[in-house]
Amino acid sequence: MTSMLRPPSSQANMHVGRFRDGRWLNEEDHLAVEEPLEIRVDWDDGETRGRRPITVTMRTPGNDFELAAGFLFGEGIVHASADIDDVGYCREVENEDERCNTVLVKLKRGVPLNIGRQERNFTTTSACGVCGKASLSALAITGCTLLPETTAVTSGLITSLPATLREAQAVFDATGGLHAAGLFDQEGKLLGLREDVGRHNALDKLVGAEVLAATADRMENAVLLLSGRASFELLQKALMARIQVVAAVGAPSTLAVQIARTFNITLAGFVRPGSFNVYSGQGRVHG
Amino acid sequence: MTSMLRPPSSQANMHVGRFRDGRWLNEEDHLAVEEPLEIRVDWDDGETRGRRPITVTMRTPGNDFELAAGFLFGEGIVHASADIDDVGYCREVENEDERCNTVLVKLKRGVPLNIGRQERNFTTTSACGVCGKASLSALAITGCTLLPETTAVTSGLITSLPATLREAQAVFDATGGLHAAGLFDQEGKLLGLREDVGRHNALDKLVGAEVLAATADRMENAVLLLSGRASFELLQKALMARIQVVAAVGAPSTLAVQIARTFNITLAGFVRPGSFNVYSGQGRVHG
Repeated sequence: MTSMLRPPSSQANMHVGRFRDGRWLNEEDHLAVEEPLEIRVDWDDGETRGRRPITVTMRTPGNDFELAAGFLFGEGIVHASADIDDVGYCREVENEDERCNTVLVKLKRGVPLNIGRQERNFTTTSACGVCGKASLSALAITGCTLLPETTAVTSGLITSLPATLREAQAVFDATGGLHAAGLFDQEGKLLGLREDVGRHNALDKLVGAEVLAATADRMENAVLLLSGRASFELLQKALMARIQVVAAVGAPSTLAVQIARTFNITLAGFVRPGSFNVYSGQGRVHG
Repeated sequence: MTSMLRPPSSQANMHVGRFRDGRWLNEEDHLAVEEPLEIRVDWDDGETRGRRPITVTMRTPGNDFELAAGFLFGEGIVHASADIDDVGYCREVENEDERCNTVLVKLKRGVPLNIGRQERNFTTTSACGVCGKASLSALAITGCTLLPETTAVTSGLITSLPATLREAQAVFDATGGLHAAGLFDQEGKLLGLREDVGRHNALDKLVGAEVLAATADRMENAVLLLSGRASFELLQKALMARIQVVAAVGAPSTLAVQIARTFNITLAGFVRPGSFNVYSGQGRVHG
């Protein structure tokens, strides 16, 4: 049931264009790896038995068995180590890339799979297949195509965005607890700003405002600023909105960069006054 | 179908004990509100019709209709404003608290509900009922009981935690892209540290390591440090692990504070050298 496979590394090197005080440098950067992990459970409580997927989470590879055990513990499915017979990568999965992204937890005989007991809903957020490649393929299946290069921005515009966003962020100043997503035109004028405790919600609100106002088409030539890190899920939402330029105050994950490169999105990270990194689509950035 | 109800505010005031340079002040603090939102869809494409919940997300109230529209746009269910007939709070929900946390999107006649089309998995993360109160009740139903007061910490210990965590965070230094969760004993000794692009994954890994090592019991007298903000979901996981003291470098949400107060967890936020705020369970903090 278990496997000796090593999961992918938790860090990866990627080429990046660094903009620093008016100059461009081409360097390697260390990025945090983001890959999906599917957690499956095998149980036999005497009355019922079977095997089923419990969740898929976007995670950094490493300590995957702990992640699976901790998730099941938090859900009340596992109460102690004695409830677990075995944890390992799932041999049933034929594709090697995907196998390292699937953990099978075998419950001790007699331990029931109490999923419905909590009478809680399960939040569903959009995800992916069971490996990065499958995640990207799924987007293509959804009809996502390569973005055109009809948007152009200057490096000065990119570095100016966070200050504009912060000025407009009334709630953030009061609570310090909100993520923000801002939409700008190519001259750096703020078109929209939304905030939320969840970063994906902030972006959904921003995009939803454009959809409800029937102005969704203008997103294709707009610039998106994220107040935090850039994850796969956020890039996926930007892609669905056909946004060509995405800038983040924080770091991007590997899978965020891969989606940006696959669909020709310009992705900037670590945006500061006077500096930022470009991970994809540098051709749209001038000056 | 729609309703004139106003959603709860996006900010709330709460009493907080502020520790600043050796002195305690009792003040009011502004917190970002966190409440669940259920998104339901009503459709009739000529062949099939019905109404079903699509997702529950933990969000900050405000711009809820945009959030629903943006989420459905990101999932490829809605492609333009013309696909939407109406968006409103769901009148069917009898409880007034819950009604403001349920948005019904009525698709235009003929627009199909394409959920399976993308052939993607949907990530499930643990959530809650459809209002904050229901979320807390669900935890009690799960068997969560009031935490005892067998752990005590000094204010100096709390302010020392972030530096200890950062020193141990090898990967963070390289990528700048990871959340961390650290477990400490009551003397501030680091017991465990896990990192991930997802903050809930970092905590699951940390707890899972204790479960797999059959040392889960020691968490009841340990101190948890979160490198970012404290959300409902993180407090829920801490509660399941029976951790009495939770400290966060960032801000807590309202629902995180409510879960801490309901189950007697000590919750500190904005932990810095020389200062922090305590939102709940101040009795465990001495000096």
